[in-house]
Amino acid sequence: MRTVDLNADLGEGFGVWQVADDEAMLDVVTSANIACGFHAGDPAGLARTCAAAATRGIGIGAQVGYRDLHGFGRRFIDVEPTDLTAEVVYQIGALQALARIAGSRVTYVKPHGALYNTIVTHQEQARAVAEAVHAVDPALPVLGLPGSVFFDECRRLGLRTVAEVFADRAYRPDGQLVSRREPGAVLHDPVEIAERVATMVATGMVRSVAGSDVAVEAESICVHGDSPDAVQIARAVRDRLLAEGITLRAFA
Amino acid sequence: MRTVDLNADLGEGFGVWQVADDEAMLDVVTSANIACGFHAGDPAGLARTCAAAATRGIGIGAQVGYRDLHGFGRRFIDVEPTDLTAEVVYQIGALQALARIAGSRVTYVKPHGALYNTIVTHQEQARAVAEAVHAVDPALPVLGLPGSVFFDECRRLGLRTVAEVFADRAYRPDGQLVSRREPGAVLHDPVEIAERVATMVATGMVRSVAGSDVAVEAESICVHGDSPDAVQIARAVRDRLLAEGITLRAFA
Amino acid sequence: MRTVDLNADLGEGFGVWQVADDEAMLDVVTSANIACGFHAGDPAGLARTCAAAATRGIGIGAQVGYRDLHGFGRRFIDVEPTDLTAEVVYQIGALQALARIAGSRVTYVKPHGALYNTIVTHQEQARAVAEAVHAVDPALPVLGLPGSVFFDECRRLGLRTVAEVFADRAYRPDGQLVSRREPGAVLHDPVEIAERVATMVATGMVRSVAGSDVAVEAESICVHGDSPDAVQIARAVRDRLLAEGITLRAFA
Amino acid sequence: MRTVDLNADLGEGFGVWQVADDEAMLDVVTSANIACGFHAGDPAGLARTCAAAATRGIGIGAQVGYRDLHGFGRRFIDVEPTDLTAEVVYQIGALQALARIAGSRVTYVKPHGALYNTIVTHQEQARAVAEAVHAVDPALPVLGLPGSVFFDECRRLGLRTVAEVFADRAYRPDGQLVSRREPGAVLHDPVEIAERVATMVATGMVRSVAGSDVAVEAESICVHGDSPDAVQIARAVRDRLLAEGITLRAFA
Repeated sequence: MRTVDLNADLGEGFGVWQVADDEAMLDVVTSANIACGFHAGDPAGLARTCAAAATRGIGIGAQVGYRDLHGFGRRFIDVEPTDLTAEVVYQIGALQALARIAGSRVTYVKPHGALYNTIVTHQEQARAVAEAVHAVDPALPVLGLPGSVFFDECRRLGLRTVAEVFADRAYRPDGQLVSRREPGAVLHDPVEIAERVATMVATGMVRSVAGSDVAVEAESICVHGDSPDAVQIARAVRDRLLAEGITLRAFA
Repeated sequence: MRTVDLNADLGEGFGVWQVADDEAMLDVVTSANIACGFHAGDPAGLARTCAAAATRGIGIGAQVGYRDLHGFGRRFIDVEPTDLTAEVVYQIGALQALARIAGSRVTYVKPHGALYNTIVTHQEQARAVAEAVHAVDPALPVLGLPGSVFFDECRRLGLRTVAEVFADRAYRPDGQLVSRREPGAVLHDPVEIAERVATMVATGMVRSVAGSDVAVEAESICVHGDSPDAVQIARAVRDRLLAEGITLRAFA
Repeated sequence: MRTVDLNADLGEGFGVWQVADDEAMLDVVTSANIACGFHAGDPAGLARTCAAAATRGIGIGAQVGYRDLHGFGRRFIDVEPTDLTAEVVYQIGALQALARIAGSRVTYVKPHGALYNTIVTHQEQARAVAEAVHAVDPALPVLGLPGSVFFDECRRLGLRTVAEVFADRAYRPDGQLVSRREPGAVLHDPVEIAERVATMVATGMVRSVAGSDVAVEAESICVHGDSPDAVQIARAVRDRLLAEGITLRAFA
Repeated sequence: MRTVDLNADLGEGFGVWQVADDEAMLDVVTSANIACGFHAGDPAGLARTCAAAATRGIGIGAQVGYRDLHGFGRRFIDVEPTDLTAEVVYQIGALQALARIAGSRVTYVKPHGALYNTIVTHQEQARAVAEAVHAVDPALPVLGLPGSVFFDECRRLGLRTVAEVFADRAYRPDGQLVSRREPGAVLHDPVEIAERVATMVATGMVRSVAGSDVAVEAESICVHGDSPDAVQIARAVRDRLLAEGITLRAFA
């Protein structure tokens, strides 16, 4: 029987500010990418999210990002690799402590936002992040984009890499994502998205914007939590996968 | 043979900004209270300080503080206890990871600045900090002021409390420190300070500003690292204690 | 004909995070207390809010607060008066520039959150804020609580003080607000709130929680923008006042 | 008689942290590029620096930078132009208020660090900064690098551009600075630096690292304040220029 993981970004508020309905999303996903305080997330909010994830037996991933609350980690910052390595270690360690006091633990690492995008190609920063994960715990898997320099660097260090697909994003014929700046980059119809995900899991292929089918690796499916319809879309994906007889289970 | 610990605050720069000669101080002390990023300390700087402490076999303490870079953690903030507990857990966890990758580990916790002073009497915050330490690791000792509400709260939870004295501060007849706002609160003469510390360790007594002798517990001696003469004073204290045949050793 | 001002806190997002429907509130109020970046508000968001206020001819007030994004300015910080004065000057100046490029200007100052509450009684901080406003422009009125030490300090310097009442808060028999920690401190029924405000404006009296009537000065009425029903309540207040033949107009 | 301006970066501490001897530098320069709180500078420190500059009759420039205390504004951040414009307006406005209460005013704008370097070639950010300055006050000159896209954008808007040379930096044959990452990029000998500056002012030429002479525009000379020998070098430059009969005077 086929199994797959469903992941979403959570814990991304800061003080009074919130972006997503974390409780609702935690009832849908199997892995929670929990912010670590650099692009979002204050300690008490992270502690609550860890506790809510622990209660449900959901996997906790350290969602590490640039130190940039104002930009929500969505802007490239030309950080020195030495700084970046230490910042990633710091973030993972902080979340590890919060996860432990919630009775759980950090079982993987997923870079966030501009850092995620940057290390698809930026070797120095990719290596800096990989080295940080490896230094903290060589047994920690990383969740990310197959074909990225980041995955190359992780594998070079012996880290397990887990490939994800995006439920609501359009793909280019080369298997990369269509930029958010282009029209049609983000899908909105829950039925269409659920159908698409089911196909990706069943066939390992996705229809690109050019009409061609491209191969994807779907060990985990990323659903977004910060749009108005996020929970509805996530539920549609979950329900469809379950209807296909697929088991949803944290990869780590 | 009598032994005592010598501690100082370290890792308290931020980016380009530095306050102390950390390398020199690390050659003098036996325990380093290393900042955790909230009142001071950026991850790369903390990693360097942890590595320098690890190399020398010096104890690493998590110096936790209020989230207040601008105030250097020296201003009371009326933080909710729930927030404070999570913030202390977060800080300890972050430093634990940095210490581990340096080949060492966090062996105690010491509150910093206004948080240190506040929890001498502020029960809710004292309990919040004590609960954070206990939640992270019930075997972690805390370094602080005997007679404080913080120590009461720590002992109630079964935490080991380690009492410190201040090498360069004047004491009141009741054993408390003279406020920094009063004249004569801080001593500056290395010879006098060293003499005073030797007496405290040998006799458990210190001469107060009123001329009376008051009892002190000196499991550890705090020397400051952020004044121009800091290193010279710390060395004078160290040399004098060694000359008295006292062994300097980390308490944890 | 009687006139009164209707004010609300606006511009209190930060980056991706938002708390209120600013556009909707700007269609209701006559004065906008716009955040200045210390407790909330990023420059681009503040620029947009200033532009939206300018377009509608609504008064712009500098809503100055403690430097505390995490606490949203709602926690007392024991800031040195010298620092506080400079911080308030800095915040007003920043908003002045943003208001000017929007074709408007800052016409008053209103302290926010914990700073507002603190300077009801804390003389040093009250004086620090008053001196900041006076230093920037002695012609700038301040909006706040009558009977406060802050108003005393402002009047001592010759600043105009403008008294506000709170539409949705319960009052004690002594004219002070019931603490938010007590039940019944905040009213929620739009009809009741609108009725209450109409009475305050018409009679200068409000029914306290003890059942007695207490005198209030209502040059401006504060409505909140950050609750789910905020806009609905604000509209109910506005409609009721207009129905009473009262003119709504910015005080400055 | 020839006149020239001497500028340095000042006010670049934050809370307890300092980088330069501001008082000593203010006795040497004629224009102070004062930080605005985004890459460095807290309001009270900026107020003190403005007051010290005002007392000496020294020009005050708004030294605007990226929002990046940790990186001291020395790292490129991929900020949206709309955000950047608002951030520059915010910073200038904040410093204008602090300068005014010191009895002076902001008479020019100089971008800092990575922002300075970025807008030599990055058109969108260059335009964003130019538009911010123009929006605040079309009469404000900008201090920077001739030949930069930033200067093009400023002139397009009718802003006055003031060209600076660097006292202690090596030049390439094309008139650009040798990167700090290359050996010999920074000069250290006060006598050599002073000689070099005197030649630049007298002849409008500087000897490049290739041995060729290249033309430079020296309306202002930038000396650095954050190295151990900074004050000594700045004094050597000043004394040499005065000895040549050149008048030192703020350009604005």
